[in-house]
Amino acid sequence: MAGNYTKDEKRFLKRLGLAIKDRRVEQGLSQEKLAELTGLHRTYVGSVERGERNISALNIKSLADALECQASNFFRATE
Amino acid sequence: MAGNYTKDEKRFLKRLGLAIKDRRVEQGLSQEKLAELTGLHRTYVGSVERGERNISALNIKSLADALECQASNFFRATE
Repeated sequence: MAGNYTKDEKRFLKRLGLAIKDRRVEQGLSQEKLAELTGLHRTYVGSVERGERNISALNIKSLADALECQASNFFRATE
Repeated sequence: MAGNYTKDEKRFLKRLGLAIKDRRVEQGLSQEKLAELTGLHRTYVGSVERGERNISALNIKSLADALECQASNFFRATE
């Protein structure tokens, strides 16, 4: 787990990552395809989905756009 | 404007920052007070509100917690 995050922060990032992964699977996309659509590296997409990245707002927006949903949906899944 | 962002990215960050500022003002907090509550630097809070920062998920969460609202609200304001 990159970065030294508190337990709450880890839980938050894991939920955020899981929401992204769930949507990707729902859309029938592989991590490779999502990486291609967003211009992000595949290993980065994988680490975001595992909750290992304190992902930026613009990367969240890119993933939401590629997954044809609203970025706020990912955050709602953490609330 | 830090970072070389596209026009869409700048618009997105500006809307995100404005949503955070609106909520701060609604809560009657100064930037100093919000910085104190979140442990973020006051100048950083100002630059986020002006849309100059590609803010991280955890910082968005800290601001939402300090402003007693859901982080998804900030993103909904950009949608």
